[in-house]
Amino acid sequence: MMQIIHSLSTLTRSLALTALLALSVHANAQTDPLPSWNDGPAKQAIVTFVKDTTTQGSPKFVPPAERIATFDQDGTLWVEHPMYSQVMYILESVPALVKAKPELAKVAPFSTVLEILKGDRAAIAKLTLPDLEKLAAATLTGMPVDTFNAEAKKWLAEARDPRWKKPYTELTYLPMQELLKYLRASGYKTWIVTGGGQDFVRTYAEAVYGIPPEQVIGTAGGTTYGYDTSGKPFLTKEPKLLLNDNNAGKPEGIHLMIGRRPVMAVGNSTGDQQMLEYTHGGDGARLSMLVLHDDAKREYAYGPAQGLPATKVGTFTQALYDEAKKQGWTVISMKNDWKKVFAFE
Amino acid sequence: MMQIIHSLSTLTRSLALTALLALSVHANAQTDPLPSWNDGPAKQAIVTFVKDTTTQGSPKFVPPAERIATFDQDGTLWVEHPMYSQVMYILESVPALVKAKPELAKVAPFSTVLEILKGDRAAIAKLTLPDLEKLAAATLTGMPVDTFNAEAKKWLAEARDPRWKKPYTELTYLPMQELLKYLRASGYKTWIVTGGGQDFVRTYAEAVYGIPPEQVIGTAGGTTYGYDTSGKPFLTKEPKLLLNDNNAGKPEGIHLMIGRRPVMAVGNSTGDQQMLEYTHGGDGARLSMLVLHDDAKREYAYGPAQGLPATKVGTFTQALYDEAKKQGWTVISMKNDWKKVFAFE
Repeated sequence: MMQIIHSLSTLTRSLALTALLALSVHANAQTDPLPSWNDGPAKQAIVTFVKDTTTQGSPKFVPPAERIATFDQDGTLWVEHPMYSQVMYILESVPALVKAKPELAKVAPFSTVLEILKGDRAAIAKLTLPDLEKLAAATLTGMPVDTFNAEAKKWLAEARDPRWKKPYTELTYLPMQELLKYLRASGYKTWIVTGGGQDFVRTYAEAVYGIPPEQVIGTAGGTTYGYDTSGKPFLTKEPKLLLNDNNAGKPEGIHLMIGRRPVMAVGNSTGDQQMLEYTHGGDGARLSMLVLHDDAKREYAYGPAQGLPATKVGTFTQALYDEAKKQGWTVISMKNDWKKVFAFE
Repeated sequence: MMQIIHSLSTLTRSLALTALLALSVHANAQTDPLPSWNDGPAKQAIVTFVKDTTTQGSPKFVPPAERIATFDQDGTLWVEHPMYSQVMYILESVPALVKAKPELAKVAPFSTVLEILKGDRAAIAKLTLPDLEKLAAATLTGMPVDTFNAEAKKWLAEARDPRWKKPYTELTYLPMQELLKYLRASGYKTWIVTGGGQDFVRTYAEAVYGIPPEQVIGTAGGTTYGYDTSGKPFLTKEPKLLLNDNNAGKPEGIHLMIGRRPVMAVGNSTGDQQMLEYTHGGDGARLSMLVLHDDAKREYAYGPAQGLPATKVGTFTQALYDEAKKQGWTVISMKNDWKKVFAFE
């Protein structure tokens, strides 16, 4: 009997807690999930899309298993100017490399990087794509996966963005963080699909965006399985490109890693066009969005779409802008659609 | 007031339902999650591992995000004898191929396959690995992803295993289905890591095992992004190998697709050894298991480990058996550890 009373008492407490939770969920449902977004077409498009795809009985309902939303990272989730963070990682890894191999100090492109780091920022323009590939191979491959992960994490903890003097990981866009959370609370699986290095982004995506490593797709190289002297297995990063996760590589990477078409995709540059096309090309409800950097005051302004200054880093051409308008993709104006850009504002 | 009474009434019903659910969860917790497993060392190893890794405060506790369990498919989750299902798919796709390209009818290895399908099963021994690669390229690539998926699904619905005369998708091992569910109910993410084709296995893994496409890693080829005549984007399967997901390719594929080390892995042949080593090589609690096919009556018996008949399909060598004993990996005896093999028994 005591047992039953005890059970009932536990049950009552559990029910009371459940009732509180139910009320709190109800309260949350009333709260704006996107407080850093201004009321406007972009916010409206998101809220309508989420409502349409998650309401049972809606003609646009999407079963939970198919709720896949893919996000570019650089320029979409966090700042990419004046230079992609991973390029800064590559450049700032060169001194340690030169210390280990002094003969590189006088060899280009390593010598050029040493000049850049001494303060000659103009020298960055001298770096060609083959230069960057050579630097990437030298700083991102040839070491055990665990060693790379530890080095990347150390750099991320210490490195500072030149403008805000903050860790790069704090320069994420608050409205996008809210969007990621809102989607996940609505049963969406959120993925990063980045031109950046898959291993690099995976070292911080979980802590920074709540996105686990297995939901990060990026430019990926091969690894080789082997054993250390004690017989313990480990993987070595190889300079063998498996996936160039830019342009057409984005839908190809999505097929390789996810195996189904996203229903929502967000990007900010020409490298995201194919991902948006591929997402938009499926049946049923679709949401394709592009972030336009038109806010020089709070962040940066670049295009060259809509007369904004041209850039090589995260180019948003007028042709892409026109395609977005033609296809019904939503262009997010940082200036007009975002109430706040950063959490630290 | 009516509003409040109505709300309270709804709340009461909701609480009653919650109470029922709570009782049912409680009842389930008392039920054996692995009823098709005999009491013995394999079942004990699983139950202990799950308890150790999911009990808060346990020294072997694994945070939910890191609960990754990887399973080989052929011979581990379903029957692989007398021949891998996907090889049967490849062979049985040849007549349609020859119909489309009649000039292939007299060209090996296509002609050899036509003989096999006419009933000359002995001719299967004539097929070399390069033959199989040629057949795989001809039947698994060169078409849009959606076309392949539709063809594979059609075949899976119609094809029958020669011994049980059942669809291959019904020849999954009931104890392993229980294990997958038990792990998921314990907060584990279950993954397939198969030497079979990634796209092929993804067409049925969700329906058959409850494993979504994005948690299937397999031997994977590249795709090419393009547009149809109406401008709609699609992906074409290419005969370009990105990942040979066997042997060392398994840990390499796990790194590529998951990005962290599993805490549990299950296989049944030499092709799984590196996955088990890699899993076992991490810190903390680890469970590595191998299924030994030692039950000729209910399924098949092959090794050649432990004096079982040798086979080229799912080879389990004595060296692998000895390594398992040395490393403390659990060998699952189908004969002794499984009360039932199939759900239809």
